[in-house]
Amino acid sequence: MTVTLRPLLALGLSAALALPLATQAAEPDEAIEYRQSALRVLAWQLGPMGAMAQGEIDYDAEVFATKAANLAAAAPLPWEGFMEGTLRDDGHGVETEALAKIGDDWEGFHERRDTFIEEANTLAQMVDDGEEFAALRKQVGAVANSCKGCHDNYRAE
Amino acid sequence: MTVTLRPLLALGLSAALALPLATQAAEPDEAIEYRQSALRVLAWQLGPMGAMAQGEIDYDAEVFATKAANLAAAAPLPWEGFMEGTLRDDGHGVETEALAKIGDDWEGFHERRDTFIEEANTLAQMVDDGEEFAALRKQVGAVANSCKGCHDNYRAE
Repeated sequence: MTVTLRPLLALGLSAALALPLATQAAEPDEAIEYRQSALRVLAWQLGPMGAMAQGEIDYDAEVFATKAANLAAAAPLPWEGFMEGTLRDDGHGVETEALAKIGDDWEGFHERRDTFIEEANTLAQMVDDGEEFAALRKQVGAVANSCKGCHDNYRAE
Repeated sequence: MTVTLRPLLALGLSAALALPLATQAAEPDEAIEYRQSALRVLAWQLGPMGAMAQGEIDYDAEVFATKAANLAAAAPLPWEGFMEGTLRDDGHGVETEALAKIGDDWEGFHERRDTFIEEANTLAQMVDDGEEFAALRKQVGAVANSCKGCHDNYRAE
């Protein structure tokens, strides 16, 4: 233990730090909490772009660009929280909408994950390329569609 | 409303989608939930690197590299959730550790935010540059220190 690392002990990252100590692997309840947090981050970033796409709020190019970049940055994050033992009926005692059937179809789940990441990256790239709102708006629909593709198949109503 | 955008309505992103509709700005309780989620994502990513740095679990170069990249990607996310009206005693009715004094010192708060983002990016860059674990380990300490710099000043115990 060096002085340099003392801050780690004071961070209060108890759940995140303590669990890997014992097992190298996350406990199901922690993984579920993590992915729900990460998905909430995605929803927060997508939300205003969806509202702009639907004409519910005015298009703000600066806000849209920030959200698109943030969504692409966060898009790869939630999925490591989905693993064996963390689905519905896995006996972890935590409420989750993640259906047990994911466990029978990891390949399909990962394909949909990859589609979402790709669509989110495309949206960010289109912003970088200076594309018009009409095109961005359509791509927001494609992103939302990729979310829905997974929700329809693997998430409880 | 076009067919393309129909998926947005079906996503169940109700909180994220509905709030901006009314105001263009997030409600305090939503902003607080968002930042807590984003900070939980950071803690999850930092946790195993901290455990490796402290020798509590074995160093795994692949896991470390993923976490370092994810931490850098997520580092800019939480801060938009800190805004006027979302701190302690702001009357929003939500439990938060974010002290009211942030409101008297946004500049200091943002400086610490920027330091953290910089340290997280440095860590990811060091991994990309193929630096040895001894160096990475020290940089994990620097990242943790930058977290602590903010927690010590602006977070309730």
